[in-house]
Amino acid sequence: MRKPRLFTPGPTPIPEHVMLRMAEPIIHHRHAEFVALMGRINANLQTLFCTKQPVLSLTASGTGAAEAAISTLFQAGEKGININNGKFAERWGKMMKVYSMNVVDVSVEWGSAINEEQLVAVLKEHPDAACVWLVHSETSTGTYTDIRTMARLIRDNSNALVCIDGITSIGAHECRMDEWGLDVVITGSQKGLMIPPGLAFVALSERAWERADAHKPRNFYFDLRKAREAWQENSTPWTPAVTLFIGLEPALEMMMQEGVENVWKRHALLSRGLRAGLQAVNLPLFGSSPSHAVTVAYLPEKGRKDFIKLLKNDFGVTVIGGQDALKDVVFRTSHLGYYDEADMLAVLGSIEYALQKVGHEFEAGRSVYAAQRVFMGVE
Amino acid sequence: MRKPRLFTPGPTPIPEHVMLRMAEPIIHHRHAEFVALMGRINANLQTLFCTKQPVLSLTASGTGAAEAAISTLFQAGEKGININNGKFAERWGKMMKVYSMNVVDVSVEWGSAINEEQLVAVLKEHPDAACVWLVHSETSTGTYTDIRTMARLIRDNSNALVCIDGITSIGAHECRMDEWGLDVVITGSQKGLMIPPGLAFVALSERAWERADAHKPRNFYFDLRKAREAWQENSTPWTPAVTLFIGLEPALEMMMQEGVENVWKRHALLSRGLRAGLQAVNLPLFGSSPSHAVTVAYLPEKGRKDFIKLLKNDFGVTVIGGQDALKDVVFRTSHLGYYDEADMLAVLGSIEYALQKVGHEFEAGRSVYAAQRVFMGVE
Repeated sequence: MRKPRLFTPGPTPIPEHVMLRMAEPIIHHRHAEFVALMGRINANLQTLFCTKQPVLSLTASGTGAAEAAISTLFQAGEKGININNGKFAERWGKMMKVYSMNVVDVSVEWGSAINEEQLVAVLKEHPDAACVWLVHSETSTGTYTDIRTMARLIRDNSNALVCIDGITSIGAHECRMDEWGLDVVITGSQKGLMIPPGLAFVALSERAWERADAHKPRNFYFDLRKAREAWQENSTPWTPAVTLFIGLEPALEMMMQEGVENVWKRHALLSRGLRAGLQAVNLPLFGSSPSHAVTVAYLPEKGRKDFIKLLKNDFGVTVIGGQDALKDVVFRTSHLGYYDEADMLAVLGSIEYALQKVGHEFEAGRSVYAAQRVFMGVE
Repeated sequence: MRKPRLFTPGPTPIPEHVMLRMAEPIIHHRHAEFVALMGRINANLQTLFCTKQPVLSLTASGTGAAEAAISTLFQAGEKGININNGKFAERWGKMMKVYSMNVVDVSVEWGSAINEEQLVAVLKEHPDAACVWLVHSETSTGTYTDIRTMARLIRDNSNALVCIDGITSIGAHECRMDEWGLDVVITGSQKGLMIPPGLAFVALSERAWERADAHKPRNFYFDLRKAREAWQENSTPWTPAVTLFIGLEPALEMMMQEGVENVWKRHALLSRGLRAGLQAVNLPLFGSSPSHAVTVAYLPEKGRKDFIKLLKNDFGVTVIGGQDALKDVVFRTSHLGYYDEADMLAVLGSIEYALQKVGHEFEAGRSVYAAQRVFMGVE
């Protein structure tokens, strides 16, 4: 017997009581019980996003939330700047093209975040941009972008809307929508929110809503004006994924009880511990700007093909490999959502087992010790 | 204590073992386990739709499936005929307008289905139509449309694609996609498929795929070409609602074990029993073409405002009221999905209780007796 242990950046593990809540007899989405549930969810989502704006819930993946924002806000021919430093960033550029936008794709090396000078140069070159898309935590490379600084630069240097892919950052990284002047923030359910995939969330700033209201809808299902109208009544325009909302309530409640700032701190601590552990057993980290949601390290030289499979088959631990040029080069370990210190010790201990099996050179026990010292506050 | 009993046409009740399966630890959607699961699901969906074409699964409500078909298949300016005999039919007309189609809205009285002469006249008047949308079972009015006959007329009289809203008909009414020449068939998960809302399904005919392949995508998330490509690998283009697929497998397995034709027969029998029961206690039926998924009857004169609330509060039975002009005029009782004869007897028995409370004139016991006779095959 091996317990299945997911260390993937979505789906992330679901708390047991949340799973069981979703298994209770289903309720009807047009009844008072569901309306009351949505009222509690909507308030907690605003706390999580640090916004007074509606946080709209869509039955879709995070990709759907990005499409909702793009199709609601922008018109054909408008210019969209896409800061492209990974697989998910790349997607938003493709999506804007489907909506006939004029896309300026700014390539940033994988593993790096755009820096201030680069961004300002792009903004000056494209003063007519309608938006800038930034990925707060790029899942494909485990890269964090300092969106607070970047949002300020965008606001200071252009009229472009600041659009944030917060899919793997919400609940992991500090993200203060209103205070930081973010115009669009999206996330998904199977990430920091600790529930299964199937829901996506999007909030727009006041000035984004002004643009939305000036346009004709370009999409029906993802028309955010309809979602906002339903939100006023604690409802949804189309039949929602009821069971996922039933799970979302206790999951959000856990986050509220821990406190959003403490949730961010926990993710910072866990990721710091994991990074220290991996480095202590000679697994160098990938990239220069590590995310708190997912840690990317180079695969052991002697286990490039087998290491990930070995971890799954022999130890029940699921991490995932790299994509595109990073395939068979790195592995990604997530600590996004329902994780604590002991989970990090378990994954490091299992990684040590697997490293021994592939013949990697390191001193056994060092990874766990290094993480413990971080968790104890000694390092 | 009262058991909650849903008689709503979506969400419909979920079998207990399906709910519990969905509460098991989540799996990753890019792993072999999920791919194998999707392979089994995809094959069973084809059996259910009676098609050799891919039945594509989307994480969305049924509205999303309609949008996927419309945005994948049709271009701005193309003509779409919409047979509008209820709230859901109306929606597809609005959606085509968002995609700048030239919509011919054919109004048919609520409670009625279009007849052959009407349809042929419309087809002759609009020989350039790119599609005709028909709702197989209109949930707002409990109206069945004979799509087999209508599809033949459309094929004989035009080149328009035959587009079927099967949202509350798949699993309730005979629907043979390939044999009947249907070009688009959509459905949703929270209906005949007996799982929670959050998934939608769509299949296209070969000639529909030819049109799709000739066009530029107009939507990103709902681009069915991407879904078809992923389908070949038993995958999905975006992160799917994993837990709903986990529930879908045993739910489909139940349908396969019963046999699709037997599932249709059961729905025919239950609806006939319920109709007989309601009429036996002086509740006239609404409409001239009753669906097997949902039965619509007039509210008792003396309980127009209270009857539905009374059923829920005093007997735990949830039925729903009418919409628009039918509000406070009719009530809708669903028998779509996980229902058997005893459920119909329970709902009729409860309706009798409530009728007594509001002072409706009828002979107690007659509704249950009438339904029993139908179920025994005597009437």
